Amino acid sequence: MTHEPLRTLYWENGSLFLLDQRLLPGEISYLECRTVEKVAEAIRAMVVRGAPAIGISAAFGMVLGARQLAAEGVGAPDMRRRLAGIAACLRSTRPTAVNLHWALCRMELRLEETAGLSGEEIIAMLEEEAQLMLSGDISTNRRIGVHGEPLIPDGASILTHCNAGALATAGYGTALGVIRAAAAAGKRLHVFVDETRPLLQGARLTALELRHEKIPVTLVADSCAGYLMASGKIDLVITGADRIAANGDTANKIGTYTLAVLARQHGIPFYIAAPCSTIDLSLEDGRGVVIEERNPSELTTLMGRQIAPAGIDALNPAFDVTPSELISALITERGVLYRPGRAGLAELMGKGER
Amino acid sequence: MTHEPLRTLYWENGSLFLLDQRLLPGEISYLECRTVEKVAEAIRAMVVRGAPAIGISAAFGMVLGARQLAAEGVGAPDMRRRLAGIAACLRSTRPTAVNLHWALCRMELRLEETAGLSGEEIIAMLEEEAQLMLSGDISTNRRIGVHGEPLIPDGASILTHCNAGALATAGYGTALGVIRAAAAAGKRLHVFVDETRPLLQGARLTALELRHEKIPVTLVADSCAGYLMASGKIDLVITGADRIAANGDTANKIGTYTLAVLARQHGIPFYIAAPCSTIDLSLEDGRGVVIEERNPSELTTLMGRQIAPAGIDALNPAFDVTPSELISALITERGVLYRPGRAGLAELMGKGER
Repeated sequence: MTHEPLRTLYWENGSLFLLDQRLLPGEISYLECRTVEKVAEAIRAMVVRGAPAIGISAAFGMVLGARQLAAEGVGAPDMRRRLAGIAACLRSTRPTAVNLHWALCRMELRLEETAGLSGEEIIAMLEEEAQLMLSGDISTNRRIGVHGEPLIPDGASILTHCNAGALATAGYGTALGVIRAAAAAGKRLHVFVDETRPLLQGARLTALELRHEKIPVTLVADSCAGYLMASGKIDLVITGADRIAANGDTANKIGTYTLAVLARQHGIPFYIAAPCSTIDLSLEDGRGVVIEERNPSELTTLMGRQIAPAGIDALNPAFDVTPSELISALITERGVLYRPGRAGLAELMGKGER
Repeated sequence: MTHEPLRTLYWENGSLFLLDQRLLPGEISYLECRTVEKVAEAIRAMVVRGAPAIGISAAFGMVLGARQLAAEGVGAPDMRRRLAGIAACLRSTRPTAVNLHWALCRMELRLEETAGLSGEEIIAMLEEEAQLMLSGDISTNRRIGVHGEPLIPDGASILTHCNAGALATAGYGTALGVIRAAAAAGKRLHVFVDETRPLLQGARLTALELRHEKIPVTLVADSCAGYLMASGKIDLVITGADRIAANGDTANKIGTYTLAVLARQHGIPFYIAAPCSTIDLSLEDGRGVVIEERNPSELTTLMGRQIAPAGIDALNPAFDVTPSELISALITERGVLYRPGRAGLAELMGKGER
């Protein structure tokens, strides 16, 4: 493995290439998407995952959709109309993360500026917007890292969950971006990572990223968090987010809420690191978040092998909601919001640096 | 599958047959143990698991050890001396569960009554004692069920963890024994079971047992418990135990402590069901419990396949300790102890029905 981190996704010769994260860490393979349908299916099947990475993939999906329409001989006015349907289809691939919605809104806003333009010009504008999102995501993550770094003490032992790293974004990462920034500042760190069942993003992806960065990492079962905290082994918890409501309630990978409850019980700070595109002011509080329930087979089988009795009933929610009162601080590219609440979030979003 | 439950272990023609629980639910296969070494290795490798089942297996291991000594021509006095070493070896196979220690103490006490007896007579007495333990375990579990049944309301939605069922005991089970008794009393129940990483005893064993009993069961990831409780889906939590200290602090499968914290946070009763042989009055409190750390490969591989980056560091404690103040009641064969504490446990053990 080179020291260059893996690219989560890239755009080349009119194709979107997605690192197939289902095959990591065993195999490094990129899925080439030349159609919007293929992008939608890749998001649904979690070839690509992580709220920011999904958003950018969907943006390129719009570019591919526009190209397909042009190839079918669809003219500019019809193209604009039919792209709205394509956005709706992409929006439906995963219901919980709001970054997907945000990215598609950005594309649609751009589309509104294309009245009178040719099909080729529309495609070029959409491609430019998607590229801006791709490069913007990395700089956003680096700013999250800059703002979050002071919250990580030298010698800290950190617990994280799932993957909120370079692989969940266009690069660098949100929660792992903060950890990367602290390591880059010369702090000695130790990271415990939950394996994150059922799809093992912690074991497969976060462990891979941290080892690659030479940041000491120890893998644990999801059920181990209470033991670690009670043993005094954890100084802080940090995770990413998929949707943050106006009052600060935060949807993230299933298990995050449990970590927040445990952190509070043990007096340990619990941080969320996420770009402002994760904040959904249209949502009053966490009760409004749609929790995606994924196929029970993700739990009952592993790598194609049955691990539970055949035909057993299983419930597989992909996310849970952490109430804002359990969140010590929200770390964004615009700064750190301590005890995130309705007023603070409104002010943060009002800064309008987006 | 017949309606007859699987036998966890049985003794036939001078061999101990252990259901190889590592292969469940895919394969039903019994490992024949003709030597104490094989029994010790089977306990270590978790062919047999569950605190009560381990204790009984070790008791039969003593019988096999005595037979091996007799076959080597070792006379009665030497046999008695060398059996002490065999007991020590069996005791070391798994450090956390106290039932193993308790079962071996029972065998050693019996051994003390054998002064002047022949080798054959010693073997016969040990065999009788092990058989008593085997049959006594089932009746103990049934009494736990009788005492615990009133705590389970009709229509209850129950969360359990790992396997505290027939497969963890000689039959019937502790936590699952209470659930079985409630079902037998005609109560409608729904059980959510944590899959229980790394070895998936919940997914593989508890799901199997409950489906066999036609008790509705839904499998969830370990990280799902907080979500279930916050959604109002859980009425009570019940688990088994591996060692209960004099003040009520309880060691059980890793993840149990997290469930207890979550249950308290949501105002949900948290019950422990266990035989009195799990209570260790010699232990002041939970801080004295030795937590077994198992091979990290249990986390990094599954069914022989690597699921985390090769060479990654992993921490794999098999148990954690739940402080007594988080336990609503301890259900034993001698009755229910609400808010178990030092005085109550001493009184319970003083009843001396053992």
